[in-house]
Amino acid sequence: MRSHPPDQEHTDEHMIKVEVNLDDTPGEWLGFVMDKLFEAGANDVYYTPIYMKKNRPAVQLQLLCSQTKFEEIKQIILSETTTLGIRYYPITVFRMERRTRVIETEYGNITVKEGLQDHQVIKSSPEYEDCKQLAEKHNVPLKDVYASVWRELK
Amino acid sequence: MRSHPPDQEHTDEHMIKVEVNLDDTPGEWLGFVMDKLFEAGANDVYYTPIYMKKNRPAVQLQLLCSQTKFEEIKQIILSETTTLGIRYYPITVFRMERRTRVIETEYGNITVKEGLQDHQVIKSSPEYEDCKQLAEKHNVPLKDVYASVWRELK
Amino acid sequence: MRSHPPDQEHTDEHMIKVEVNLDDTPGEWLGFVMDKLFEAGANDVYYTPIYMKKNRPAVQLQLLCSQTKFEEIKQIILSETTTLGIRYYPITVFRMERRTRVIETEYGNITVKEGLQDHQVIKSSPEYEDCKQLAEKHNVPLKDVYASVWRELK
Amino acid sequence: MRSHPPDQEHTDEHMIKVEVNLDDTPGEWLGFVMDKLFEAGANDVYYTPIYMKKNRPAVQLQLLCSQTKFEEIKQIILSETTTLGIRYYPITVFRMERRTRVIETEYGNITVKEGLQDHQVIKSSPEYEDCKQLAEKHNVPLKDVYASVWRELK
Amino acid sequence: MRSHPPDQEHTDEHMIKVEVNLDDTPGEWLGFVMDKLFEAGANDVYYTPIYMKKNRPAVQLQLLCSQTKFEEIKQIILSETTTLGIRYYPITVFRMERRTRVIETEYGNITVKEGLQDHQVIKSSPEYEDCKQLAEKHNVPLKDVYASVWRELK
Amino acid sequence: MRSHPPDQEHTDEHMIKVEVNLDDTPGEWLGFVMDKLFEAGANDVYYTPIYMKKNRPAVQLQLLCSQTKFEEIKQIILSETTTLGIRYYPITVFRMERRTRVIETEYGNITVKEGLQDHQVIKSSPEYEDCKQLAEKHNVPLKDVYASVWRELK
Repeated sequence: MRSHPPDQEHTDEHMIKVEVNLDDTPGEWLGFVMDKLFEAGANDVYYTPIYMKKNRPAVQLQLLCSQTKFEEIKQIILSETTTLGIRYYPITVFRMERRTRVIETEYGNITVKEGLQDHQVIKSSPEYEDCKQLAEKHNVPLKDVYASVWRELK
Repeated sequence: MRSHPPDQEHTDEHMIKVEVNLDDTPGEWLGFVMDKLFEAGANDVYYTPIYMKKNRPAVQLQLLCSQTKFEEIKQIILSETTTLGIRYYPITVFRMERRTRVIETEYGNITVKEGLQDHQVIKSSPEYEDCKQLAEKHNVPLKDVYASVWRELK
Repeated sequence: MRSHPPDQEHTDEHMIKVEVNLDDTPGEWLGFVMDKLFEAGANDVYYTPIYMKKNRPAVQLQLLCSQTKFEEIKQIILSETTTLGIRYYPITVFRMERRTRVIETEYGNITVKEGLQDHQVIKSSPEYEDCKQLAEKHNVPLKDVYASVWRELK
Repeated sequence: MRSHPPDQEHTDEHMIKVEVNLDDTPGEWLGFVMDKLFEAGANDVYYTPIYMKKNRPAVQLQLLCSQTKFEEIKQIILSETTTLGIRYYPITVFRMERRTRVIETEYGNITVKEGLQDHQVIKSSPEYEDCKQLAEKHNVPLKDVYASVWRELK
Repeated sequence: MRSHPPDQEHTDEHMIKVEVNLDDTPGEWLGFVMDKLFEAGANDVYYTPIYMKKNRPAVQLQLLCSQTKFEEIKQIILSETTTLGIRYYPITVFRMERRTRVIETEYGNITVKEGLQDHQVIKSSPEYEDCKQLAEKHNVPLKDVYASVWRELK
Repeated sequence: MRSHPPDQEHTDEHMIKVEVNLDDTPGEWLGFVMDKLFEAGANDVYYTPIYMKKNRPAVQLQLLCSQTKFEEIKQIILSETTTLGIRYYPITVFRMERRTRVIETEYGNITVKEGLQDHQVIKSSPEYEDCKQLAEKHNVPLKDVYASVWRELK
């Protein structure tokens, strides 16, 4: 559907937002469901605490996926949770131009994801997995590894 | 609008999702509002905790209803809460084929709601109200009554 | 333990706060558990959304009870939920002097609970159940019934 | 786009609902972001607690704005938060007829916002800022100032 | 301090509950912190959404640990988060008698954790990790694996 | 009670944690209450969303204060909210050694709060109010001002 390179700034009009209310699925299963949904290509999966009828603390599952993934995603939700229905609606996603570069820090190399507008970098996020590995390797706080990246960014 | 039997698998494209932010309605009233909205035919009514301006812990009321119920639902919200406005958007609902059957357990008969795909049962939920009544009648934990259903399902 | 009349201002030093984290009890059961705990004499029972390990949205049950009720309350939690443990600690409760009086409104009589300090009324809460019944009887919004009380209070 | 006076009852079909998930923006920045978004003309801005992947407690920013404000709002979100994308969809807003009037109370004059249907007042909300100022000026509880308004409303 | 076997019913009076409010630690770091705290021997670690001053959506970290682990736990919190202080208080933990046994199901062997009172099993929880592995191995829904256990329990 | 300088590392054993459940106080009032409690010397005030009986979404107010402030704090809660009772328990607070210093950045001077252990700085937090003012003065994103501090810290 889209012909632009996915890392350029673009507006994607073919996404679907899905939501499901769950009051009889144990929380224990929901971590598993989240992993399966990401593996199936959901772009975003998250839970919100909700209050349902009959004094039930419950959970709303929400996710974002492309139209082409929707059928597979739907099957996972129907198989893995206790719901008998799924709600959805079209949603538009604007995405900034993205680029990665590698920064040398005192702890090792760390990939930084950059967001650009008009080809100017306006934000930089160190990759969590890189930082986590270096924090474990050097046995230093995670926040010191992040700080080592921030010092290198200018 | 729909000619299919409501318990067959179908996709309903005439539903509306309604949402209202409430920062000056006491929580005490909101249980009452939920009951009234269900009585008026809302399919789902639930609350989410939200954070509003000026440090106000507040509540978002969300509900799902068919287009034909919308006007009545709107009136209830305007009458019973303190909001001056209501937001809404169309939402599509996929519903599995549903069927009920009655299971005999050691505690008595319990209705089980089944969800089917391709005419295969892929999920079974004991009816909460049946289980609750039997738990109270036999003075046993609710979870033992549910367990008695699961043992019978194969 | 206490010799003062329970509706006089007093500080109760024999209360216990109980908390339990639940990540594999379905929300559907938790409304039932709350009712049982109130019936057994818990003074306050409430749920908080929490985030547990392995990406599990979960629920914390908290309640307040007197030391004399604790054993019975503990049994209900162990029987009705999936937890294998219960945490608790002593907590002190200050309670205002309380009094009720009945107010005549255009919809009927409504009990008002009053809180006093130095024998002065400093707060007045209409009883929810009274207001609810009158709202249903007269088919008016609940908030109009509350408003009818506030007009009478001076 | 609209020709009706904004305070008359109307249905506005040119609004946009925006949502952004934030798992690496410190909470400290989010109060600031909320203020900026209101200043730029967002009609409603609020946060919801969410559970994201990798056990991250996170926050969803949601807001409502007119189509004409959308570009400016988008720029603020991209500049002030850490997100690389923004999701949005059209939403319809029904707004009651609104009117204000000033009430004389024992503490001073207070503006009351009224909501009307069929030209009948069906709700009245004292302006928070007025009540707050009078509570501070007279050094009385905020709830006494609200109560002074309710007594005057009939 | 304790001489009883840890899997027998007992009341542990040497536990500490720790809590920390975090409004400037990104959510991204908090999954990492949770892992480190469990590795250091915390018995329970969880997050609660809270509302702090200046409109900040924030997070409360809570955990339970034995007195002997407290110093190590404290060091992790001070190193890995942005807080300058830690609050704590003693808490008592009642723990049921626990036992595990292995159940043969159609998908393979699954460990079940049992909770006992007066040497009677009153609850049985299939081990999540066992169920997850079998669900992945057989490519069936996780809930089917749990159901296979429940059928075997009587 | 304490003779040590308050900014040195110390453990304060004379603090009180207070909690109140609120299901009939409008959210609108709660921002005001938070401000009053901070002014009266509470060290920390925050709200948590809770689920109370009768399907009521509600709010728990929690705060931390020294024993010497408790009576004044209690009066504010009783006057400003709708509760008739207050729960509390002693809590211990460990506080790191604290120090501030001023950093010169490209946007101006910014105070940084430092936390020390064994006289080593292990964390540094730019003061939010300083950063906010400079962001407004220079009309740049708040996060750029924070970044300017991080670059100067080594």
